[in-house]
Amino acid sequence: MPIVHITRRERFSAAHKLSRPEWSLEKNYATFGKCSNPNWHGHNYVLWVTVAGAPDPETSFVTDLSELSRLIKVHVIDHLDHKNLDLDVPFMKGRYSSTENLAVAIWEQLEAPVKGLGVVLKTVKVEETENNYVEYHGE
Amino acid sequence: MPIVHITRRERFSAAHKLSRPEWSLEKNYATFGKCSNPNWHGHNYVLWVTVAGAPDPETSFVTDLSELSRLIKVHVIDHLDHKNLDLDVPFMKGRYSSTENLAVAIWEQLEAPVKGLGVVLKTVKVEETENNYVEYHGE
Amino acid sequence: MPIVHITRRERFSAAHKLSRPEWSLEKNYATFGKCSNPNWHGHNYVLWVTVAGAPDPETSFVTDLSELSRLIKVHVIDHLDHKNLDLDVPFMKGRYSSTENLAVAIWEQLEAPVKGLGVVLKTVKVEETENNYVEYHGE
Amino acid sequence: MPIVHITRRERFSAAHKLSRPEWSLEKNYATFGKCSNPNWHGHNYVLWVTVAGAPDPETSFVTDLSELSRLIKVHVIDHLDHKNLDLDVPFMKGRYSSTENLAVAIWEQLEAPVKGLGVVLKTVKVEETENNYVEYHGE
Amino acid sequence: MPIVHITRRERFSAAHKLSRPEWSLEKNYATFGKCSNPNWHGHNYVLWVTVAGAPDPETSFVTDLSELSRLIKVHVIDHLDHKNLDLDVPFMKGRYSSTENLAVAIWEQLEAPVKGLGVVLKTVKVEETENNYVEYHGE
Amino acid sequence: MPIVHITRRERFSAAHKLSRPEWSLEKNYATFGKCSNPNWHGHNYVLWVTVAGAPDPETSFVTDLSELSRLIKVHVIDHLDHKNLDLDVPFMKGRYSSTENLAVAIWEQLEAPVKGLGVVLKTVKVEETENNYVEYHGE
Repeated sequence: MPIVHITRRERFSAAHKLSRPEWSLEKNYATFGKCSNPNWHGHNYVLWVTVAGAPDPETSFVTDLSELSRLIKVHVIDHLDHKNLDLDVPFMKGRYSSTENLAVAIWEQLEAPVKGLGVVLKTVKVEETENNYVEYHGE
Repeated sequence: MPIVHITRRERFSAAHKLSRPEWSLEKNYATFGKCSNPNWHGHNYVLWVTVAGAPDPETSFVTDLSELSRLIKVHVIDHLDHKNLDLDVPFMKGRYSSTENLAVAIWEQLEAPVKGLGVVLKTVKVEETENNYVEYHGE
Repeated sequence: MPIVHITRRERFSAAHKLSRPEWSLEKNYATFGKCSNPNWHGHNYVLWVTVAGAPDPETSFVTDLSELSRLIKVHVIDHLDHKNLDLDVPFMKGRYSSTENLAVAIWEQLEAPVKGLGVVLKTVKVEETENNYVEYHGE
Repeated sequence: MPIVHITRRERFSAAHKLSRPEWSLEKNYATFGKCSNPNWHGHNYVLWVTVAGAPDPETSFVTDLSELSRLIKVHVIDHLDHKNLDLDVPFMKGRYSSTENLAVAIWEQLEAPVKGLGVVLKTVKVEETENNYVEYHGE
Repeated sequence: MPIVHITRRERFSAAHKLSRPEWSLEKNYATFGKCSNPNWHGHNYVLWVTVAGAPDPETSFVTDLSELSRLIKVHVIDHLDHKNLDLDVPFMKGRYSSTENLAVAIWEQLEAPVKGLGVVLKTVKVEETENNYVEYHGE
Repeated sequence: MPIVHITRRERFSAAHKLSRPEWSLEKNYATFGKCSNPNWHGHNYVLWVTVAGAPDPETSFVTDLSELSRLIKVHVIDHLDHKNLDLDVPFMKGRYSSTENLAVAIWEQLEAPVKGLGVVLKTVKVEETENNYVEYHGE
């Protein structure tokens, strides 16, 4: 049976900043640059979720993409879209909102629901701007 | 002499929200939907500035694009990038941060400096997400 | 009051062919090339709808984009997406499904509903492939 | 000798539907949603073919891309472009036209010809819409 | 009869530089920056050609796009693709290879052939990089 | 500790040709096609550099992207942008300027500086046109 990877793209727009509250404005700026702006900034994030499995003999699908999309919406997008990553998102509590941490947190949100679909989560990719993106493979 | 239009693309990432302070959360949500999230959200905005003129006989340029880019940076991008459109931007004071208002405000910022280059400002286009953008032609 | 143009992007995937039933296969192929394949082919069409108006003083919107998107969905996308343009679409009856005719037909579908929003329909743009698109301005 | 991966992009526009003929319209709709429309729908598919090998000392190419492109055209694109995936394509006979099955079938079409170029086929990627794509690595 | 605009995209990759032979290296660098590199540089240019007309009652086409594409290839792309804009292109002789001049020269190459198709040339757009493009409307 | 991959995109515009000086024009054309044009051609190259590591507990970054970008600029982009790959680039001396060789040479330029950031270089990807790109993983 061939193993095929299938990827779903979703999007969310969110505010965030990078700063440690125990540091001065100056130290935050020296470390995080313009991302430390106290009044926040924001991005149109793009998320790609890749799962792998054998196509089902009856449907020829690795997984029903509309169901995968619904799970991503319920477990990830509804928590992040038009939100503040540092104030509004329970699963980001206690983590700085770097794209790296965001990708790992999204992996944790999706791992169990994706397993429930009978497929394996392979990659979470998060693009912050057209010039940088992050990938997490669960290891 | 041919009149040629030339367009420069720039980008900025910013936080904002749409809400009227004198309205209740409920009325703001009914009017502005998820854009009214009290803790802000944000976007990767894309800006296109189009100017028109005759190519200079000596340089064959309508205008020096690096100079146009510098003017856009000084008059627009430096004020907007990694900022909060509702708190940090002098030229947005007193205006709601709809993409419509943003395009008109950027036009106002650029009209005089662009005239100083000897060309005519034709269009300011602002893309908020891949699914919507706004254009202002100065009228 | 400034007049601002605002554009909403929507997408639909559809089957179609270009052939005149009263012509032979050979004449259809000579005229329409591979687009005349009797068993159909298809595209991911991209639609941009541009409207113009003055921003509302209360909301700062030319028009509520979610309402514009809903109107495009009800009057256009629901009729075209995952359909056969030549068999399934009442408003394409009696017209060949060239991108040109499609753009004009979409304009006719949207003109009255857009007027109901208090704004003016300016352009319907339909992209058939990355290498060609059509625009109709209502004239 | 370094091993380099090189990828060629090609495109095809095709009609298809997802439905099992022995099922009722209702069961097909419940399983495949709008993809089961009896009169077909279609897509602009994008195909990426990745091969790997050591650059040739004489040409500095892993493989001649125009020859790779020609092989993809002869073995894949000519069979799929402006066709109906369910009616017109010999190598899709007996398979439902999910993107998963399409990627596996394209791999089978290309594996031997690519080997004839002296390189190894690594990945077949097929994008159905901007929001979903499939990859097959031959395993 | 509705007038519809239709646009064809083509691409070419070319070398060029911006420098006046009668000027010193220093003056050329001061005026044209890194574009004056004596050993050339190059771009993947993207060209969009827009024509307008009424759809033909028999074919429903404003113009046969494969014929428009062939004319663009014969009159423009074959002269520019994988060439040096300053050394190899008869219709650029005596003009500096700014994108502005290139757009005007392409217009001149296409105006008569497009008229021969029974449609009107409306716009030549040339993109030099993702951050800048030029449009010429024939005036 | 999770290992996260992070990718930075940069761009450069350069001239080059593919031809062996000891071969005739005819043999070069037979082997390299239009890429052998004696007067050069050029491209907008796009470069993606992927590195991997564990997010730093203090900053939550795998690596400071502005520092990674600066290293790519100093070691790669400044040598390639608005240059002739065959005449102006010390680290391409003695190598034909195929995209394959370019990717390997860029890897060699970046391997040590990236190690100095405390992360591992994983992939250098170079796109020559929208239809072809090359990846090198260091093996």
